[in-house]
Amino acid sequence: MTLARPSRPHLILASGSRTRRDMLKAAGVFFSVQTADVDEVAMRDALAAEHGDDIVPPEDVAEILACAKAEAVSAAHPDALVIGADQVLELEGEIFAKPADMEAAREQLLRLRGRAHKLHSAVAIAKAGDTLWAHLDTAELAMRDFSPRFLDDYLAAAGDKVATSVGAYQIEGLGVQLFERVDGGHFTILGMPLLPLLTELRRIGAVAT
Amino acid sequence: MTLARPSRPHLILASGSRTRRDMLKAAGVFFSVQTADVDEVAMRDALAAEHGDDIVPPEDVAEILACAKAEAVSAAHPDALVIGADQVLELEGEIFAKPADMEAAREQLLRLRGRAHKLHSAVAIAKAGDTLWAHLDTAELAMRDFSPRFLDDYLAAAGDKVATSVGAYQIEGLGVQLFERVDGGHFTILGMPLLPLLTELRRIGAVAT
Repeated sequence: MTLARPSRPHLILASGSRTRRDMLKAAGVFFSVQTADVDEVAMRDALAAEHGDDIVPPEDVAEILACAKAEAVSAAHPDALVIGADQVLELEGEIFAKPADMEAAREQLLRLRGRAHKLHSAVAIAKAGDTLWAHLDTAELAMRDFSPRFLDDYLAAAGDKVATSVGAYQIEGLGVQLFERVDGGHFTILGMPLLPLLTELRRIGAVAT
Repeated sequence: MTLARPSRPHLILASGSRTRRDMLKAAGVFFSVQTADVDEVAMRDALAAEHGDDIVPPEDVAEILACAKAEAVSAAHPDALVIGADQVLELEGEIFAKPADMEAAREQLLRLRGRAHKLHSAVAIAKAGDTLWAHLDTAELAMRDFSPRFLDDYLAAAGDKVATSVGAYQIEGLGVQLFERVDGGHFTILGMPLLPLLTELRRIGAVAT
């Protein structure tokens, strides 16, 4: 007699991020993608309003948004396990948004230049509209004091891709040249703490042990 | 008047590793590749013999080999700056060699299973046969207690690639599922501490600042 392998729940990644999709795919996890219809800007505003003058800590914003994305998709797919993720860039308490265009990317990089910032990455698993589990991890990155000419060359070479990530850089490419120090997990920097996610997926029987 | 950009020295990467080549290329560095004709096994044996009963620390072995590779290629290309690199996997004082085949990879993974090991990655820059600079960094990785079935599936899916890296795993792919914890720089884990290398290349004028 051969033992049948246990059937695994269907996994959905509630993120349109190509980096997150590639990361999970490279790890050998089977899943589909369903982008969450969550207005991140509105949610951030709501978070700020709810708490009045008290600022919601940037890492809490990442976790709340990761859960919100997972829950939104999960409500529409109640039998699946839904993975939500969010990343927030924080410079001394201030949250940076994704740059809208090349000029915004330039301004952002000039503000980050010569200073250390944080990347808070959160991941959550939801089922039937409720979050079952969430995890937050933070990396710290110190940008070097690059020259104006370097910035010009960097922006020209990186092109429109600079506007696709929260920090206007891809550390897995040219962006690494912007940094003098990087402390933290690689997957956290890319936007989703993969190891804790895999550990939890194994614990609940969603991937093989 | 426009200022001419300073001409940069020619860079050679003295490593046949595709991962190192891809890493340096993704960072936007221009270089050529010239594999060092260094017999790593013989060098390790020589290091062991030289020191008699005193064991050469595994991290020193990585640094000595990185320098040896850079120096060997550099002697033949005296005008270039040559980058050498080496990575040593250490389990409780013992150095692991690259597995020769799938069966060796299986044995190695079974020995690493449920334990933490270290990856020592060294990088060196040589000119005219002499090392100018070297840097060593260490990461610690804890492998989880995966099931025999998982190992079978992992080896079948990873295929011959398991024999191309020192730990019989590619953390940038399926291999991430072998781990429960990874502490250390991503580039160090991949086999070459890239950030300190780029900092030094900038300092000596070999890449743009």
